[in-house]
Amino acid sequence: GLFSQNKVLTIDTMNPNVKNVEYAVRGPIVQRAVQIEKELREGMKKPFTEVIKANIGDAHAMGQQPITFFRQVLALCSYPELLKDNMFPEDAKSRARRILQACGGSSLGAYSASQGIDCVRQDVARYIERRDGGVPCDPDNVYLTSGASDGIVTMLKLLVCGEGASKTGVMISIPQYPLYSAALAELGAVQVNYYLNEEKCWSMDLSELERSLAEARKHCNPKVLCIINPGNPTGQVQSRQCIEDVIRFAAKEHLFLMADEVYQDNVYAEGCQFHSFKKVLFELGPQYSNTVELVSFHSTSKCYMGECGFRGGYMEVINMDPEVKAQLIKLVSVRLCPAVPGQALMDMVVNSPQPGEPSYTTFMKERTATLSLLAEKAKLTEEMLNTVPGITCNPVQGAMYSFPNISLPQKAIKEAKALGQAPDMFYCMKMLEETGICLVPGSGFGQKDGTYHFRMTILPPTDKLKLLLAKVKEFHQKFTRQYS
Amino acid sequence: GLFSQNKVLTIDTMNPNVKNVEYAVRGPIVQRAVQIEKELREGMKKPFTEVIKANIGDAHAMGQQPITFFRQVLALCSYPELLKDNMFPEDAKSRARRILQACGGSSLGAYSASQGIDCVRQDVARYIERRDGGVPCDPDNVYLTSGASDGIVTMLKLLVCGEGASKTGVMISIPQYPLYSAALAELGAVQVNYYLNEEKCWSMDLSELERSLAEARKHCNPKVLCIINPGNPTGQVQSRQCIEDVIRFAAKEHLFLMADEVYQDNVYAEGCQFHSFKKVLFELGPQYSNTVELVSFHSTSKCYMGECGFRGGYMEVINMDPEVKAQLIKLVSVRLCPAVPGQALMDMVVNSPQPGEPSYTTFMKERTATLSLLAEKAKLTEEMLNTVPGITCNPVQGAMYSFPNISLPQKAIKEAKALGQAPDMFYCMKMLEETGICLVPGSGFGQKDGTYHFRMTILPPTDKLKLLLAKVKEFHQKFTRQYS
Repeated sequence: GLFSQNKVLTIDTMNPNVKNVEYAVRGPIVQRAVQIEKELREGMKKPFTEVIKANIGDAHAMGQQPITFFRQVLALCSYPELLKDNMFPEDAKSRARRILQACGGSSLGAYSASQGIDCVRQDVARYIERRDGGVPCDPDNVYLTSGASDGIVTMLKLLVCGEGASKTGVMISIPQYPLYSAALAELGAVQVNYYLNEEKCWSMDLSELERSLAEARKHCNPKVLCIINPGNPTGQVQSRQCIEDVIRFAAKEHLFLMADEVYQDNVYAEGCQFHSFKKVLFELGPQYSNTVELVSFHSTSKCYMGECGFRGGYMEVINMDPEVKAQLIKLVSVRLCPAVPGQALMDMVVNSPQPGEPSYTTFMKERTATLSLLAEKAKLTEEMLNTVPGITCNPVQGAMYSFPNISLPQKAIKEAKALGQAPDMFYCMKMLEETGICLVPGSGFGQKDGTYHFRMTILPPTDKLKLLLAKVKEFHQKFTRQYS
Repeated sequence: GLFSQNKVLTIDTMNPNVKNVEYAVRGPIVQRAVQIEKELREGMKKPFTEVIKANIGDAHAMGQQPITFFRQVLALCSYPELLKDNMFPEDAKSRARRILQACGGSSLGAYSASQGIDCVRQDVARYIERRDGGVPCDPDNVYLTSGASDGIVTMLKLLVCGEGASKTGVMISIPQYPLYSAALAELGAVQVNYYLNEEKCWSMDLSELERSLAEARKHCNPKVLCIINPGNPTGQVQSRQCIEDVIRFAAKEHLFLMADEVYQDNVYAEGCQFHSFKKVLFELGPQYSNTVELVSFHSTSKCYMGECGFRGGYMEVINMDPEVKAQLIKLVSVRLCPAVPGQALMDMVVNSPQPGEPSYTTFMKERTATLSLLAEKAKLTEEMLNTVPGITCNPVQGAMYSFPNISLPQKAIKEAKALGQAPDMFYCMKMLEETGICLVPGSGFGQKDGTYHFRMTILPPTDKLKLLLAKVKEFHQKFTRQYS
């Protein structure tokens, strides 16, 4: 007949790679949380009065205040009439003028160069040089992105090809941030797992990298190694030695390094320090710094800024083949440019108020307060979780998450499997229904077979975080009794 | 040896689909233009003093002023302290409050729902209903995007699959906007060309659609039909009859319709009117409106707004399979959310000042002035181009571009081919070097074999546009003489 009963686009005719994508951070448990919030608003009775979301690193949503200076500059850039006013400090005005001068027609509404606004890339380069104790950075190696996710997907797009045994393999840590597995599924690449060592505070073992690579070489062409440091979801901060080992391994095994360093300011634990892959690479000498291909990602979404909604970010590529760079510029030009307000925000992050400028004191006060509070909450989370029998939590050395190991009774595991659910999904879903707490099951990030975890952000305000941790404790004990 | 001389990522090892991508709007000619600008700044002597860019629909870069109300609301949302001030009109404040209330932590810095902020999607739905004379729109069918490009690529990602003869074919107009060919190349889909009828003012012929489809069915599985209306690069506005024919054709041939309607306010020619595919679909009755799968795209970048830098946009999907919708939501959730300032801007576009509100008069004055000026420049461009012997230009009925046909002497065609260049690329490159005018060759959009064109925006300020057109005329005459 003229009007087909069948749709053109169905679950059976759609792109199977997209069907294979999974993304737990906004998966079924979060969808159910949104539903429960609606049910609460509609007056439905629950054993709790509000949903507490600890599923996603969304700082402002959890009450963190934006940095005043950043928002003043954004307001000035959005509505330059405000530059005539006396209500804004001079340093905010001069930053806004500089950004606007670099925009077509002096407007945030013009497209920028696809690689990002020139002066912002220059500021990024100077920031990287300061951060890395003077290791040089060429602005031509800097690409502004829509958050780090955009950069990571773009790089993987360039790298992934081949079919069968010559298909590109990409090594990612387990547990991992599921953007990686999702992007690899979408691109049809081979995900090559290497396991972080939970017993040694989620560190990377060289022997595990070797095992993983040798295994992968039997069935695909592994050519990329991804590292998240500080770690998501695992909150570890890798040692300088570990980073050096990883770089030597990549050089020896001819792997392209992708370093996700979006939590570079989020380091809390005593004795821990952020070491950029770039800096360590250059400290290893020219035979490394002239050969190893590295891309590093940063963003406006994490650290003390927490400006996720602006989708600002950058990546720096080192030792990329010039012909491939031309291809990269072409590829990013198809999407025209990253959102310009996010570029402006990225600029303020890398070009923040300096001593002597009118906004410096307030900026430093706000920055320090945010980072100190996060450090406190990291400690609090670790300590309280470790008081629960059956929960073991590594120190939250950095980033914004704890990823505790949870013991689940055999009966619960059986019941979950009967329902076709991962046992920690079953656990988290029950916790959500009974307490209103929204966590992400460890199975959404990957974990060693037979172990179970959840990821919990440390972002809720201290009072709420304490309440949340108390509820987790109570729930875990009740759950354990119920299924023992 | 330990340190491989070969890079991991080279032009030979990279993703070949990415290598196949072409994007003329920011291609070699534009890169050369940027270089020339630098040379001029460095004092190099040229036969001109400035580069005039008419290569891209970047209104603000060409001096178009943003709508005051939009920028006031954006400033208020960016720095809510301003809400306490008396310098902003009440309607701007109330819009800002409404958007901030819908943001996590009342901050533009929080992630939004991946599909977009709820209240913005509701406002979009009401806008579509008003636009289409009451045809209902469900906010659940509305997805906010990062500009229209993002939505188009996302939809193609869902639709494209298969290998060999069952590989998805996607029908696109020739000439086309090269985002389409670029996305298809990247996804490895089959590009199926149908030609617009230049003789009939770039209209769509049913017989040409039939020819194109029949041909494609011999070697692939065509299941998508893309239309750009008003047209880019061709500036036509399709008639209601034409849209009806296209919908009937899609229903009969079981094709998924993608309607790129980002220029919906950019209609200038007498007797022309914008008809949305959605409205015409519903006017054809339930046997069509309940079955034909349609997605329509809109954006903040064009029309009277020209806010390209914010990357705001939305798409509305009609008759999408509910299982596929769940997959779409999952897919967009991997990238977290479109930039929130762009979502806020999209909201203002669909929820602009109303009669009786304090900003209404100014808003309407600004909107009307911008659209009237564009209409004038459309007319001016068409008229002046048609005075040049060897240039024939269809009326610029809508959008922001003229796409004139240019006669090139045989000698020039030969010389271009000897250089391995498309003849109109050779022509445009010469024009750039001699006059500083930056246009995009027709070959970047596709054209009938043996015909040559360029795309020129109508966006430069009137004085500069006149100068530009005079220079084009002079250059074309000189070029013709030189190669005759």
